[in-house]
Amino acid sequence: MYEVEIKVRAEKEPVRRRLEALSASPQETVIQEDTYYDAPHRSFAETDEALRIRREHVPEAGETKIKVTYKGPLVDETTKTREEIETPVQEGEKFAAIFEQLGFEPAATVHKEREQFELEGYTVTLDTVEGLGEFVEVETEATEGELDRAREGAFALLEKLELEDATRLRTSYLGLLLAERA
Amino acid sequence: MYEVEIKVRAEKEPVRRRLEALSASPQETVIQEDTYYDAPHRSFAETDEALRIRREHVPEAGETKIKVTYKGPLVDETTKTREEIETPVQEGEKFAAIFEQLGFEPAATVHKEREQFELEGYTVTLDTVEGLGEFVEVETEATEGELDRAREGAFALLEKLELEDATRLRTSYLGLLLAERA
Repeated sequence: MYEVEIKVRAEKEPVRRRLEALSASPQETVIQEDTYYDAPHRSFAETDEALRIRREHVPEAGETKIKVTYKGPLVDETTKTREEIETPVQEGEKFAAIFEQLGFEPAATVHKEREQFELEGYTVTLDTVEGLGEFVEVETEATEGELDRAREGAFALLEKLELEDATRLRTSYLGLLLAERA
Repeated sequence: MYEVEIKVRAEKEPVRRRLEALSASPQETVIQEDTYYDAPHRSFAETDEALRIRREHVPEAGETKIKVTYKGPLVDETTKTREEIETPVQEGEKFAAIFEQLGFEPAATVHKEREQFELEGYTVTLDTVEGLGEFVEVETEATEGELDRAREGAFALLEKLELEDATRLRTSYLGLLLAERA
């Protein structure tokens, strides 16, 4: 399965109004704390991979979910499409310890508040990222054969949200954060 | 937490009779399928570490549990004492895929039937390992300060089981299997 994603820098409020006008379905708002790891044997910055432990807190439900995620290199030039393997775990601290013993070092932690909407088979996400500001993502999952259509649909949706002129970013929040620090 | 363990090569039946005579508490019998991984950046055979995905089937309960385990190097000369980090996961196949994408390759899979007893704070395990035969392990967990006492207790228990003359092994089942193949 591939993740097809377009990310733009944009104020959330006008996009939220467009989503409401288009009758998008609001989802739960979540607080995510993502710790990214560096590998001991290759540079994830160069290979464009990521290994992450995500702690996701859902204030409404009062629960926290933890997931381990591997993201493969980007596979095209215009969107943020890549292979992703994600799986729930119960004990995030144990995985942090296992990764560290294996030589994977925590590179940075990204904190964000994430508001999500479902619209026409896509997830539209309004993010406030600590230290970086506000962003909007349009995202869906697709098999290899569906990739072209999924990308076209994502760009069409971006237009409906009046975001076609917004600055598109292929850099991850981790990458943006590390660039801010450098 | 450390795992203090003595492993000997021994027929199970006489040990099972000794355990019954000593009123040890029988636990569930489990079938374990352990896949061990090689690391891309160092030799676990040399560093004496292990990364494992364990699929444990409990026939009586009709359930399968999956765990990811890291084992650190042995820390003493006479027992199999080492740091161990173990944590349950729901999707073993996803972790297998993540490890392989990160460059960890499956080295071998160890299949065994494991019968366990609790006695005097120790776990006594009777193992039948596919391709290797029968073994007995005496094991407990200890903090760093308790290690000496835990080791002495393990040797005392070995005597009670009339196993003081049995061949002690510091090699893992994985190591024994790989040696058989070589």
